[in-house]
Amino acid sequence: MEIGFIGLGLMGRPMAGHLLAAGHALHLWARRPETLEAWRDRAGVRLHGSAADVARYADLVFTVVADAPDVEQVTLGARGLAEGARPGLIVIDMSTIAPAAARDIGRRLEERGIEFLDAPVSGGETGAIDATLTIMVGGKQTVFERARPLLECLGQTITHIGPTGAGQVAKACNQILTAMGIAAVAEAFNFARASGVDPARVREALLGGFAASRILDAHGQRMLERNFRPGFKAWMHQKDLRIVMAEAQRLGLTLPGAAATTQLFNALVGSGGGEEDSIAVLKLLERLSGYSDHGNDPSP
Amino acid sequence: MEIGFIGLGLMGRPMAGHLLAAGHALHLWARRPETLEAWRDRAGVRLHGSAADVARYADLVFTVVADAPDVEQVTLGARGLAEGARPGLIVIDMSTIAPAAARDIGRRLEERGIEFLDAPVSGGETGAIDATLTIMVGGKQTVFERARPLLECLGQTITHIGPTGAGQVAKACNQILTAMGIAAVAEAFNFARASGVDPARVREALLGGFAASRILDAHGQRMLERNFRPGFKAWMHQKDLRIVMAEAQRLGLTLPGAAATTQLFNALVGSGGGEEDSIAVLKLLERLSGYSDHGNDPSP
Repeated sequence: MEIGFIGLGLMGRPMAGHLLAAGHALHLWARRPETLEAWRDRAGVRLHGSAADVARYADLVFTVVADAPDVEQVTLGARGLAEGARPGLIVIDMSTIAPAAARDIGRRLEERGIEFLDAPVSGGETGAIDATLTIMVGGKQTVFERARPLLECLGQTITHIGPTGAGQVAKACNQILTAMGIAAVAEAFNFARASGVDPARVREALLGGFAASRILDAHGQRMLERNFRPGFKAWMHQKDLRIVMAEAQRLGLTLPGAAATTQLFNALVGSGGGEEDSIAVLKLLERLSGYSDHGNDPSP
Repeated sequence: MEIGFIGLGLMGRPMAGHLLAAGHALHLWARRPETLEAWRDRAGVRLHGSAADVARYADLVFTVVADAPDVEQVTLGARGLAEGARPGLIVIDMSTIAPAAARDIGRRLEERGIEFLDAPVSGGETGAIDATLTIMVGGKQTVFERARPLLECLGQTITHIGPTGAGQVAKACNQILTAMGIAAVAEAFNFARASGVDPARVREALLGGFAASRILDAHGQRMLERNFRPGFKAWMHQKDLRIVMAEAQRLGLTLPGAAATTQLFNALVGSGGGEEDSIAVLKLLERLSGYSDHGNDPSP
């Protein structure tokens, strides 16, 4: 199949690689041309001068960019996908953007005869590299069925949630659960430590009961090892929480736990921790308890 | 073994039954005498007129009561366990109380030659009935080893966390994780619904990724089925969060997520939901979004 791919960053690069490895022809364009250098002269890859040019050759185009204005620019902007699209082109946006923005972009693409799926992912860089991403899809069932074999090259749990925007709603729910989950483990570990109790023993005991979660297991272990390398950067989690809270305000929804957790991520990013993994909220809480950043000894 | 058991409520009753079934002799006393009626004339059971009398016959006594003043009264109060104890008696308190209170009671019992373990549990009434409780134990390692065969009659995951009070610290951590976990799932489900998306699809998708947890799985399913029967009552979870927040204030710890969640439980209990399961926070959030309590139709 002729596949376009736009957004060759931390997540997009391994994802495009999986599609190429599965035998598809790749059509690439990048907003920063240097991004394309690694792909030049690779068999099965063709580089283009614009998103519109990618659309002229592709049956289906993936976009994996940062936020709604980027998706809009690449799809509907000058020399964007819509300008070059043949009838029946499918655009699959795997970025995390507001549900309302996804619905708007989807509607405007459909008006031009272009099919659209919002298909945000969870699982981070590791999930992209191992092709074990969780993919939450919004859009027409028929389009989803056509895209499914390609999504199966990228992820493990692929769920059609509902109409356009529903993928982004599920992703927002995912970010509420992961942010509050990370905050809960960080608060519990700091509570244990300040009480003179080994958080490793607490984690072990709690994994056997109702408090068990993948976050307590995997992220909890990384907190114990004091491994704050991203993974998923704190500023990106903060950005996703901004989407959640803006949508809650629009809908008139109260989200007390997510709101408090957003404040925690604001403080983490504000105090210089944005480039670390979002589990670095533990270090923020420790600093507020008078512990040093190395985590082994209370500060003098 | 001659075993005393005090606190034959929702949790204590099935637990005492497991010990009896394992072949131990049970010595019972209850603050409300009618509680004992069901145990009269049962083989292997002897009823007593005071906690002190129980201690005169028992090698080991379990207490499963509501809060620290109850534990103190039963152990150190008038006609309490300490008055009748033979040297070397082991008292295992499985109530959820403040770590500082457990340390204080443990110290005062030890001064009288009585061994003490704090061994709070997680897993609710189902866990007590099925003997699948998570048991978090604080106290001396040697005493823990002697008690372990009995604890294995009651639970599945039995962990020695550290010295006296450490069991209660782990339980406090457990209550932070479960309260925030329930709040996160309730907030996410209400967000999905208000966005026109089926929470059941969201739950299914998210169980395949990093947001997966026993709470999303089991409690999420009960929320979908609108089954708010306890389980674990909201007022008890609120009580446990009061312990967590009081301890945090004593230690100078910031717990922003747990604090916001405590407010949510305060509102749930304050608005009359204390006797429902703590997952009824979903209904509270729904009411604040203008949905009716039946959950199927938005209120007019």
